[in-house]
Amino acid sequence: MLRGLARAAARRPGALWTRGSGNRTGVPAHVVDLRSDTVTKPGPAMRRAMAEAVVGDDDYGEDPTVRELQEKAAKLLGVDRTLFVPTNTMANLISVMCHCQRRGSQLLLGQECHLHVYEQGGVAQIAGVHSHPLPDLPHGTLDLAELERVVTRGLGSPYHPVCELICLENTHSSSGGRVLPIDYLRQGLGAPVGALVGGPKDFIEEAWRLRKALGGGMRQAGVLAAAALVGLADFEEVLPTDHKNAQRFAKGLQELASPICSVDLAAVETNMVMVRVHGPPPEELCRRLQAVSADEVAQTGRAVHVLLFPWTERSVRAVWHRDVSAQDTELVLKKWGFVLRQLGP
Amino acid sequence: MLRGLARAAARRPGALWTRGSGNRTGVPAHVVDLRSDTVTKPGPAMRRAMAEAVVGDDDYGEDPTVRELQEKAAKLLGVDRTLFVPTNTMANLISVMCHCQRRGSQLLLGQECHLHVYEQGGVAQIAGVHSHPLPDLPHGTLDLAELERVVTRGLGSPYHPVCELICLENTHSSSGGRVLPIDYLRQGLGAPVGALVGGPKDFIEEAWRLRKALGGGMRQAGVLAAAALVGLADFEEVLPTDHKNAQRFAKGLQELASPICSVDLAAVETNMVMVRVHGPPPEELCRRLQAVSADEVAQTGRAVHVLLFPWTERSVRAVWHRDVSAQDTELVLKKWGFVLRQLGP
Amino acid sequence: MLRGLARAAARRPGALWTRGSGNRTGVPAHVVDLRSDTVTKPGPAMRRAMAEAVVGDDDYGEDPTVRELQEKAAKLLGVDRTLFVPTNTMANLISVMCHCQRRGSQLLLGQECHLHVYEQGGVAQIAGVHSHPLPDLPHGTLDLAELERVVTRGLGSPYHPVCELICLENTHSSSGGRVLPIDYLRQGLGAPVGALVGGPKDFIEEAWRLRKALGGGMRQAGVLAAAALVGLADFEEVLPTDHKNAQRFAKGLQELASPICSVDLAAVETNMVMVRVHGPPPEELCRRLQAVSADEVAQTGRAVHVLLFPWTERSVRAVWHRDVSAQDTELVLKKWGFVLRQLGP
Amino acid sequence: MLRGLARAAARRPGALWTRGSGNRTGVPAHVVDLRSDTVTKPGPAMRRAMAEAVVGDDDYGEDPTVRELQEKAAKLLGVDRTLFVPTNTMANLISVMCHCQRRGSQLLLGQECHLHVYEQGGVAQIAGVHSHPLPDLPHGTLDLAELERVVTRGLGSPYHPVCELICLENTHSSSGGRVLPIDYLRQGLGAPVGALVGGPKDFIEEAWRLRKALGGGMRQAGVLAAAALVGLADFEEVLPTDHKNAQRFAKGLQELASPICSVDLAAVETNMVMVRVHGPPPEELCRRLQAVSADEVAQTGRAVHVLLFPWTERSVRAVWHRDVSAQDTELVLKKWGFVLRQLGP
Repeated sequence: MLRGLARAAARRPGALWTRGSGNRTGVPAHVVDLRSDTVTKPGPAMRRAMAEAVVGDDDYGEDPTVRELQEKAAKLLGVDRTLFVPTNTMANLISVMCHCQRRGSQLLLGQECHLHVYEQGGVAQIAGVHSHPLPDLPHGTLDLAELERVVTRGLGSPYHPVCELICLENTHSSSGGRVLPIDYLRQGLGAPVGALVGGPKDFIEEAWRLRKALGGGMRQAGVLAAAALVGLADFEEVLPTDHKNAQRFAKGLQELASPICSVDLAAVETNMVMVRVHGPPPEELCRRLQAVSADEVAQTGRAVHVLLFPWTERSVRAVWHRDVSAQDTELVLKKWGFVLRQLGP
Repeated sequence: MLRGLARAAARRPGALWTRGSGNRTGVPAHVVDLRSDTVTKPGPAMRRAMAEAVVGDDDYGEDPTVRELQEKAAKLLGVDRTLFVPTNTMANLISVMCHCQRRGSQLLLGQECHLHVYEQGGVAQIAGVHSHPLPDLPHGTLDLAELERVVTRGLGSPYHPVCELICLENTHSSSGGRVLPIDYLRQGLGAPVGALVGGPKDFIEEAWRLRKALGGGMRQAGVLAAAALVGLADFEEVLPTDHKNAQRFAKGLQELASPICSVDLAAVETNMVMVRVHGPPPEELCRRLQAVSADEVAQTGRAVHVLLFPWTERSVRAVWHRDVSAQDTELVLKKWGFVLRQLGP
Repeated sequence: MLRGLARAAARRPGALWTRGSGNRTGVPAHVVDLRSDTVTKPGPAMRRAMAEAVVGDDDYGEDPTVRELQEKAAKLLGVDRTLFVPTNTMANLISVMCHCQRRGSQLLLGQECHLHVYEQGGVAQIAGVHSHPLPDLPHGTLDLAELERVVTRGLGSPYHPVCELICLENTHSSSGGRVLPIDYLRQGLGAPVGALVGGPKDFIEEAWRLRKALGGGMRQAGVLAAAALVGLADFEEVLPTDHKNAQRFAKGLQELASPICSVDLAAVETNMVMVRVHGPPPEELCRRLQAVSADEVAQTGRAVHVLLFPWTERSVRAVWHRDVSAQDTELVLKKWGFVLRQLGP
Repeated sequence: MLRGLARAAARRPGALWTRGSGNRTGVPAHVVDLRSDTVTKPGPAMRRAMAEAVVGDDDYGEDPTVRELQEKAAKLLGVDRTLFVPTNTMANLISVMCHCQRRGSQLLLGQECHLHVYEQGGVAQIAGVHSHPLPDLPHGTLDLAELERVVTRGLGSPYHPVCELICLENTHSSSGGRVLPIDYLRQGLGAPVGALVGGPKDFIEEAWRLRKALGGGMRQAGVLAAAALVGLADFEEVLPTDHKNAQRFAKGLQELASPICSVDLAAVETNMVMVRVHGPPPEELCRRLQAVSADEVAQTGRAVHVLLFPWTERSVRAVWHRDVSAQDTELVLKKWGFVLRQLGP
């Protein structure tokens, strides 16, 4: 999620984006942040909910707002129970720890998936679980024959770790081994802090213990749960809008018919668009989309900063979320048009 | 912290206290919760601050409110930097992990201290650190001769774990080995979620990595930091008030001159009062202080529920915090008077 | 086991004892090593057995001599199965890992026991198990009321680690929680390398996996098992002899009626004798018992070096084993007599 | 290393090979075991050395034979020091633990290498180290561009684990990151138990601590070191012989010109030969090479059992070692000839 510029950002926290950077024209800067759906900021309804939340000590199980969120989410997801935790990373870690109770457990997962690459190897460091990553196939799937080979070679053998968990990061997957069954809730909801783990009663009781051990048992977490409840309520409206905007961008970009970049429209199924880049390095493209020159302001009358992460050596990722409107999407397309013309032949 | 009733509460989350329990008299129930200073609820100023907080993605270091809190706290504490984390438990765990980088590290600490008893053994489970607890002496100190014996026997030996850290839970201690240098900030502040770890730049950089690994790197954590900033601002007012109320209670209880309980006034230095119980089990005393009978309402015209935790087999702990006023303290004293008379000879 | 001189020895491997040290008299040095029963050296019968052992690859379960040892030991101990491992430390560690499968497990044990103090905190470092040591009572027992208090406070609580194991280092104990049920076999046997873990079939299957993970799955281990089988065969003869020699020493020392040291005869039940020291530091006493002066050779016609470990600040430990004969025991008594007279009033 | 039959063997220890199996002809069975060089049995010289070894307590650093082995091996390898441990698996684990002291360490290695696949994930389970395996290129190398990409993305990032170690299982490699610098000594030597870890003084001091923690600090290990010293002494003779026999087999097999199997002669550089199998499954081929039919005895006058492991779905591995002579190699070739004719068109 964090190659190139992202790496730089990680090294110099806060350095990636300074309000008004590269723009001394007097025209007000407009920022559209497509780096990730984790950058969404709570809107007025969420903030009001937070200010008015009834709270208790959730570490004693006494916060009524957290309990309401957990119960609503459990119903929505068709699981026994859910547990509110501070972050997705902790949700993932707790899920792995609950599933992999046995010493010498092995986890099979995609070699570029978030859990393997961006969570500091917590599965080994914290949970003592050995990872065996496999090449990622399109749509987040893994090679079933290879999966079977690795799982079976560990059966009954004292030499191999035992495959206790297969983790697929794919909202469409029908596999039984999903670690992150409700992970997408967070990504749609736009709540400022928190994630949910879901599962059977026993699983959640163990998850409660592990949340405590990891230091995730918060006190008056109701102020956070209140925001998530707002997200849950209008979630069915927001998600299709994000998907529609992402589609609109993908089509608009194809219509620009630039030799520099292209999109596989068939692959745009959710709120993410992967733009293939033919020509300049993705970092260069991102830099130009983020900057605003005096020329641009003169020509377009606007100062639009589009924030994006280079994804691979040949692609850029754009993510829609509740802070990006249909109007923003049109501005983004115009900005791409301007930059592609600049770079063009 | 959680013996007796507390254990029961832990087993049946939410079961400890139901509003209006044991009171069908029509007189409005008044609850004073002295179980812990973690039960404080955010007041109007905090809630407003949360609703209005400027936020960013703190996991990218981009949340200005979190950065403001971290900088203010660092100045206040005289440390290079601080890091905002979801809970005290995580602050403790990160501190231990940072200090005990070496494989085979040993931690010396008091045998009843929070880190050893109430945090699920995370130091071993998560951090792989071996604990050697020592008897707690008064004022949270440990026997220096015994400390030295254990530390020195590990030096250069391939048999013993190496003592990398001595942890004292004592706000008055001048030891160099404090794990929790700013832990008390949280306990005074009354912010709903979050704690701070403080130390030199390198220490905090490592803490940042470990926070990520543990799943404590929150996104728009500014909503939480905003509340903590309010707490920080009026902290110098609130703390002396809590101490004064605790003193008032201790003196008032002594004046009741009951054979059933007593307080060592000299030991009341902060916002905690330990009540020694001579006679009924502490659980029984706590039950009576929590319940409200029709008799009591008839006699006193009030329905006051006082929540407390039994502490040892012969003591009860009472903790003052920003949700307990001078007036509440008088009501608590009256309630104790009523219950002691009931139990008395 | 390793205070004082022992610590020094640990720091400078091999430095404790150099053949002929302190003796330039021409009289041949005679060394009696009472430091530990781990110092025994394989005798001719054991060496012959090792040289002639039929072996296979035990990591594939194909070493017939290891299998014979495991089966014989299982019968002797009345357990389903046993597993041969390189050391007592690994036997202890594997036992703890098998018993404490659950994340957040806690181990209760004596605060001076070998597993807690002399095995590098491997239970935390390697196995992630939290230790709660209790004061050691005489005969290796622990306070049952305190045990119960600690075990019950963890039941069902998400705050406390769960007590999964109580470890008593006491060959007389009838507790169900013994980690080291057959540990003493090794200490009597005198085999050069190896220890056994015993238990039900499932337990030993898990132990097999963990032995592999820890790097204890040896190849042609039959050469070691052969020596242990010799030990097993004459074990019923050797053990009573050791006990008798220990008794003889204890009585002989009491008969010397020295004000400098004494023994509690009632406490000498096995092959160990604890000598209480009143006067010089135990380190000084051990130094004199180890050294041989020209004076001594002149007076006694012998150059006897007695190796011992200081045990506490006021005691010295002596351990009998198959390399110490009845004759050696008499020489040891004479040496003590000589040294005590030197130190005496 | 242990697919197919090997897996079966692992599940049923001891079941793979029973002396005389499949041969009721009266002709004496002759077994040639080419499964691995770990199956070698100590010869008369080694056994004599073991029986006569001068020993001490190596856990106190007092075993002179172990010290001699460690010093000789250090000289031979050009390292400061070496440390004797019970197994290769422990040598690997200790090396990883010493190199990866930092929390959140990552290990890069080949995806089919022994450490990743056959050692139970001990690097994660025991050492808390996160593995990122890469595809194995010929000759045990890894893709340098991919290596660099993974190493650099973790630099300074709080999201990624930190690459602390690159492990190449290749005796020809000139990389600085070798975990197993002297691993091959064990594989040539033929000593029954034990392996060596080598490195600078500090590294070996830490390794000593970790050996203790893992339970690898043996007592009179000199009996094992004595055997290794014998191996070390004639190692320069044995190794070239093994390589010559392996070459002879490879060429002889090619001369059989069977359509069923082939060998890449250029790849036979040491004591291992990979036989590519075209036609029957490798398991079937191994079964026939192991069995002896009445027909075969009648035709050849011999009852030769050749033990081999299927290696991949299309290959079989044969390993030469000190228990396989030039004569054995001719018998093996004859057996292959017989079996290939049976299977042939």
